[in-house]
Amino acid sequence: MIVGTVGCGLRYAVKRSGNAVGYCSLTIKCGTRDEGDFHSGIAHFTEHTLFKGTERKSAKVISGYLDRLGGELNAFTTKEEIVIHSTVLKEDLGKAASLLLELATCPTFPEEEIAVEKGVVIDEINSYKDSPADDVYDKFEEALFAGHPLGRSILGTAASVKKITSKELRQFTKEHFVPMNMALAIVADIDEKKLEESVLKLVGKVFKNEPATGGERIVTPIPVKPAFNKQVEKRNHEVNAVIGNFAPSLDNTEERFAAILMSNIIGGPASNSLLNSLLRHRRPGIQSPAEQPITGEKRMGLRCRVVIFTVHRIRHNDNQSRVRARQLGKMSGCDLEGYPEDAGRGIFLRQAEGREKAVPRPARHQLRQR
Amino acid sequence: MIVGTVGCGLRYAVKRSGNAVGYCSLTIKCGTRDEGDFHSGIAHFTEHTLFKGTERKSAKVISGYLDRLGGELNAFTTKEEIVIHSTVLKEDLGKAASLLLELATCPTFPEEEIAVEKGVVIDEINSYKDSPADDVYDKFEEALFAGHPLGRSILGTAASVKKITSKELRQFTKEHFVPMNMALAIVADIDEKKLEESVLKLVGKVFKNEPATGGERIVTPIPVKPAFNKQVEKRNHEVNAVIGNFAPSLDNTEERFAAILMSNIIGGPASNSLLNSLLRHRRPGIQSPAEQPITGEKRMGLRCRVVIFTVHRIRHNDNQSRVRARQLGKMSGCDLEGYPEDAGRGIFLRQAEGREKAVPRPARHQLRQR
Repeated sequence: MIVGTVGCGLRYAVKRSGNAVGYCSLTIKCGTRDEGDFHSGIAHFTEHTLFKGTERKSAKVISGYLDRLGGELNAFTTKEEIVIHSTVLKEDLGKAASLLLELATCPTFPEEEIAVEKGVVIDEINSYKDSPADDVYDKFEEALFAGHPLGRSILGTAASVKKITSKELRQFTKEHFVPMNMALAIVADIDEKKLEESVLKLVGKVFKNEPATGGERIVTPIPVKPAFNKQVEKRNHEVNAVIGNFAPSLDNTEERFAAILMSNIIGGPASNSLLNSLLRHRRPGIQSPAEQPITGEKRMGLRCRVVIFTVHRIRHNDNQSRVRARQLGKMSGCDLEGYPEDAGRGIFLRQAEGREKAVPRPARHQLRQR
Repeated sequence: MIVGTVGCGLRYAVKRSGNAVGYCSLTIKCGTRDEGDFHSGIAHFTEHTLFKGTERKSAKVISGYLDRLGGELNAFTTKEEIVIHSTVLKEDLGKAASLLLELATCPTFPEEEIAVEKGVVIDEINSYKDSPADDVYDKFEEALFAGHPLGRSILGTAASVKKITSKELRQFTKEHFVPMNMALAIVADIDEKKLEESVLKLVGKVFKNEPATGGERIVTPIPVKPAFNKQVEKRNHEVNAVIGNFAPSLDNTEERFAAILMSNIIGGPASNSLLNSLLRHRRPGIQSPAEQPITGEKRMGLRCRVVIFTVHRIRHNDNQSRVRARQLGKMSGCDLEGYPEDAGRGIFLRQAEGREKAVPRPARHQLRQR
């Protein structure tokens, strides 16, 4: 793999693979946490409306551009980044990479397209109401990061999305969509040196001789609050529970790797045998958080700590489940004394007691993608 | 890629990749559709309990075996197959492949482990109740394949799972877990010829000089019924709808590829630009079936046709959505005249009118994995 930085500040990584198709992605360091005074959900809405027209292509042309080559074009937004990506035959990678950069550098945000897209996003917001496992995360983050953009749902609310204007989208991308915030990655069965040359040529064409400016993350301090213990009543079959705290951001690579390693030791997204034997097989009643990371608590450079673990699917009205949840809590170093005895069907949230007092400093977290 | 068949009937495929880790899977042609007179959910329950002990290893040893190498071991069941798979460092592929074959050839199904696992599976059954998009498929297949094992939920019911015994599991695997029904696949950064040699050696050791016997799928005829139009009341936010019919099985490769191609033309799991512009962007109210295949109707050799398309997330009480659903129906050749005017919040199922009368013949379908 070859990695590097172009003069304008854009970073790139190219890697040879043995696959018949090639992959290309453009990541922009700009997500929900960067929304500041903008309307909630603007990062995600920007991702949707990048496809609605550029200075050279209409929404219709963009929609069919890679389709006609048998390729795919898609995107997602997390709390820390917007990623546009495509899969094409390797011969078409130049077109794909060029399109991704075009979408990110000269979107026009046509008013009439935006009006239609609001309906699409509001549908998406509503659709998550049928997913309790997603809902519990949103509720938890809302409580943990209350008052901070990180506490917002990635999608925003129907009310906030309705207020977003073309002008606001242009302002948002002007502030954040700068080469210093961008990283282009290509994986394909092509010589890496040649790939690098093509990337340099393409990026040079798009950004001319622009100097590297901007890209500094505007850090909004997180208001610190005492540990909490909340319950939300829902009509679900299961209880979904999250117990957690702060953790290292995407920006904080080294600490983050340490946290991921700790997560894998305790259980991890692949649900290791320790977790399986402690919870799933020996202690029916609590299902392991198969899809969600279990992150070990760790003192971080940024004095941020994260979601420590999640317990999905505690059987309601089952005292044994509560006992097991406490055991799991102890295993991860959490004090779970406050586990509510009357936890019924619903969503149960708990921020762990910190071993040190957190101070208001930047939190940089990667959270689930949508 | 090298593919081949060993004397005992087991098929294999080995492929060189450029990845640091190796992948290994053992697929057994045996799923929900092969349950016949066994209790509903036995295929899936077999998959779970293969890990509960073999003639040489206890459940605990199996659980930690690849974990200790930093690897992963998992499995899933569909209506047509059980797949056990692992990801390990390439040096450990021999151990992984050997373990997969051991799990499939000499499981002991210890009674006490089975009792515990029933709790785990019943939890899993209950957890799907919180997922309307899964539920609509189960309900649809139940109606489409009524009276046939294909109409059963992959997981079975709490009542049927409780009845499964160790003896029944042994009988089920004896009938279906024969080399003729197995395929071993390995993808790793290892010379393909060497990989093939290792596979032949390993399989020879496991199956000795057994001749190829068994493996013929016992075909249960599907009772044919007139097209139906059903609604199920649910308390979900959205209406989830499926409109479909029979389609070619995993066994029927050529017809299946044709159906997949048709699916991609109409919309496909990647949701192409045609589908996006028709539904998602131009017609808010119906969200595209982003995760589910849209399969074009096609006359099949087996006279089976499949799920033609699914419309998730129709806004309830929205007349425009109904109009759009009809348009989508026409696009895929379905008669949607019967679309219920009073479709409220709920699950809406409809089998399309066939252009020819289906006759009671084997249906061989690949369906979602769990």
